[in-house]
Amino acid sequence: MSTDFSVPGFRAAGVCCGIKARDLDLALITSDVLAAVAGVFTRSTVVGAPVEVSREHARKGRARGVVVNSGISNVAMGQRGLRDAREMTKLAARALDCAPEQVLVASTGVIGEPLPMAKLRKGIPKAAAALDRAGLPRAAEAIRTTDTFAKIRSVTGRIGGKTVKLSGMAKGSGMIEPNMATMLSFLVTDAAVSPAFLRRLLKQSVDVSFNKVTVDGEGSTSDTVLLMANGLAGNAVLRSASSPGAGRFAAMLTELCEGLAQDLARDGEGATKLVTVEVSGARNPAQADLAARRIANSMLVKTATFGGDPNWGRILQTVGAGRVQVDLQRAEVQLGGVTVFRRGSSAGAAARRRAEARLKDHEVTISLSLGAGRSKTRIWTCDLTYDYVKINAEYTT
Amino acid sequence: MSTDFSVPGFRAAGVCCGIKARDLDLALITSDVLAAVAGVFTRSTVVGAPVEVSREHARKGRARGVVVNSGISNVAMGQRGLRDAREMTKLAARALDCAPEQVLVASTGVIGEPLPMAKLRKGIPKAAAALDRAGLPRAAEAIRTTDTFAKIRSVTGRIGGKTVKLSGMAKGSGMIEPNMATMLSFLVTDAAVSPAFLRRLLKQSVDVSFNKVTVDGEGSTSDTVLLMANGLAGNAVLRSASSPGAGRFAAMLTELCEGLAQDLARDGEGATKLVTVEVSGARNPAQADLAARRIANSMLVKTATFGGDPNWGRILQTVGAGRVQVDLQRAEVQLGGVTVFRRGSSAGAAARRRAEARLKDHEVTISLSLGAGRSKTRIWTCDLTYDYVKINAEYTT
Repeated sequence: MSTDFSVPGFRAAGVCCGIKARDLDLALITSDVLAAVAGVFTRSTVVGAPVEVSREHARKGRARGVVVNSGISNVAMGQRGLRDAREMTKLAARALDCAPEQVLVASTGVIGEPLPMAKLRKGIPKAAAALDRAGLPRAAEAIRTTDTFAKIRSVTGRIGGKTVKLSGMAKGSGMIEPNMATMLSFLVTDAAVSPAFLRRLLKQSVDVSFNKVTVDGEGSTSDTVLLMANGLAGNAVLRSASSPGAGRFAAMLTELCEGLAQDLARDGEGATKLVTVEVSGARNPAQADLAARRIANSMLVKTATFGGDPNWGRILQTVGAGRVQVDLQRAEVQLGGVTVFRRGSSAGAAARRRAEARLKDHEVTISLSLGAGRSKTRIWTCDLTYDYVKINAEYTT
Repeated sequence: MSTDFSVPGFRAAGVCCGIKARDLDLALITSDVLAAVAGVFTRSTVVGAPVEVSREHARKGRARGVVVNSGISNVAMGQRGLRDAREMTKLAARALDCAPEQVLVASTGVIGEPLPMAKLRKGIPKAAAALDRAGLPRAAEAIRTTDTFAKIRSVTGRIGGKTVKLSGMAKGSGMIEPNMATMLSFLVTDAAVSPAFLRRLLKQSVDVSFNKVTVDGEGSTSDTVLLMANGLAGNAVLRSASSPGAGRFAAMLTELCEGLAQDLARDGEGATKLVTVEVSGARNPAQADLAARRIANSMLVKTATFGGDPNWGRILQTVGAGRVQVDLQRAEVQLGGVTVFRRGSSAGAAARRRAEARLKDHEVTISLSLGAGRSKTRIWTCDLTYDYVKINAEYTT
C-alpha cells in the first residue's frame, strides 16, 4: 500500500471546530477544478438530512468538494436539519468560491441533536484555509467516530497511457452517543470519467465491496459513498465499458473499495477477527447473498468465531433457518480452509482440531458450498465479542 | 397459574437414561386412549431426522404419545439418523402397546453425533415404567438443555358445559455443545377436538405465540410443537370455529402458548430482561412483522436494552434499514410506556430520564408506531448481554 495518498488536483483538510472537545471533527475535500461526481447512498427508508442534500447535488454530476463533520449526525431534525445541511454546503461553497450545488455534505454522530452552526460557520472557513495536497489522511482522521484506526488507501494504474491515481478513505460502523452505525467513504481520482459512467462504475464497485460488509446487520440513515474524478490525469475521458482503459479503472476502483470494506469489517466494534464468508453452490445470486448474510450476521456463528469454535452446525442451522436451498449430502463447510463437514456429516475430530487451530488467526475464512447450484458470493464481517456488548451497552451510562 | 399440571387421561415421565451424565434426559408423555394429534414443525430447509418422522406420524391425526430425549439432537446423521428416530418410536410403541405410527419423537442437543441406542433401548422401557399422572413436571425437566428453569403451564376452562384442562411444557433456545437453539413444546388436553380442527387451532396459536419469540433470529432444525387432545373431558367434539366452545378453547390454547413463549424469551441465553416489542401503524401485517423482528433481533437495540439506554435512534435505524415504511413526522417511540420520540424528534431530556428508569425493570416494552398504516403485531425477545457471548463463545473450550 502506498503511503503517499495525494491525488493531483485534490486538496483536503481535517480540523477541530469544537463539535468534539479536542479531536478532529470537520473534513473538507476539494478538487481544484470542477470534477465529475457520483454518489451511492443508504437504502434506508429513514434518511438523514445530509443524504437528502447530497443526493440532490450529486444528481447534477459535477462537484468541487465535500464537507463532512463527525460528532453529530443531523438526523431526525426535521426542517431544521435540512436547513443546516444546506448551510454547510453554502459555507464550503463560499470558501471554495463555487456554487453550493457543487458541494456535497455528510454528517455522522449523535442523532436528535442540532448541529452547532456557530461552530461550523467558523470551522468551515478554517478547514478551507488548511486545505493541503497532503491533507487526505487528516481528513480521514476527522471523519472517524469510534473507529479505532483511520482508514485510507490508494491505488495507482495506467489508463490510456496516463498514470492515474485513486485514493479513498472510509469510516466504519462506529457508534457514538446515542446513535447508529454510519458508513462513510470518500474517493478521489484524477482520471477523466464522464459523470454517467462514473455513477455506473461506483455502483458496481460498491455492490461487491461496501455492500458486502456487515458488522451487525444494520444499515444507517446516513451511509454515503462519494467519488470525485477531476480528469487531471489527462486520459481520454472514460464514457463506457468499451472506452480504452475502462476495465482497468473499474478494477482499480473495486480494489480500493474492497480494501476499505475489509478495513471496516476488521475494525467492527469490539472485533478481534476479520471474517470472510464465502458461499458457493447456491441456486441463484440472491440465495448466495442470503446464505452469506445469514452466516455473517448470525450471533451464534459470530460468537463461535470469537471463541474459536469450529461449529459447522450453527452455519448449517442459520442457512436452513433462512430458508436457503441446501443439499446436505453435497454441501461442504470449510473453516480456515479445513473441511469440517461434508457428505452429510462431520469430517471427524482430527479435522475439527485443525480447524480450531486456524480459527485462532486474526483473519478467518468461513466457506460453505450449498450443493444446490452454481452461484457464489463473498461477504466480510467480524466476530461478536464481549467488547461489542460493552461498547454498545455501556457507552451512555 | 395452577400448580397441578395433570390432565385427565395423560401420564408422563422424565428419567435419566445416561445420555447426560446425571440429569434427566428422556421424557415420555402418553395418553391412555388414542388422542387427536397436531404438530407444527420447523420451517428450516435443514431438518432433523426426528422432525421427519414426527411430521409423517402427525399426519395420521391420532397418536398415543411422544418420546423425547435431550443431550443429542440426531441431526445431520443421514440414514442412520432416520433409522434411530424410527427405532425410538418403536421402543415407545412396544412399551405403550400401540403402533409405532402412533408415537411421535423429538431430540435436542449436540448435532453430528449418533444417538446411544443401547441406552435408549433400556431407557424407554424405564420411562414407560415410571409413567405417572403427576409426571408432566419431570418430563419438562427432562427436555431441558441449557434452559435455566423448566417451563410448564396449565389453563382450565369450561367447554360445552365440561371442565377442560390444557397443560404444556416447552424448552427454550438453550444451546449445548456444539449446537443450535431448539424450541420444543408439548401440549396435552382432555378436550375433544377433531384432528383437522386441532391442526388449525394449533397453527393459529403458534403463529401468535412461539412464532413471535426470537432470541437471536435463529430457528433450529428441530423446532417442534405437538398438541394431543384425548377427548376425556367429554365435551361435544370441536370440529370447526362454529362448534360451541371452540372460541373458548382457542383462547385457552393461545393463552397457554403465549405464556410458554414468554417463558422462552425470559430464559433466552444470558438474558436479564424479557422484552416485548410492539409495532403499530404499519402499512400491512408483513411490514408490522418485519419491523418488530428488525427491532427484536437488532444487536444494537438488544445491547442498548441490556445497558438501559433509551436509544430511540437505534430503533428507527434498524426499521429504516429493513426498508420498513415509516412516516417520521407521525412515528412515535415509547420505552416502558414513556414517549421518547414523536413528531420527528426527541421528546427531550426529562422523558429520556424517565425512560431510563423504566429500562431497569426485568420486563421492558418497546413500542413503535410507524405512522404508515393500521397493522400491528407483538414480539417477545430478550437483551444481549456479556453472558450471551460467554455461553456461546466459550462453552466448547
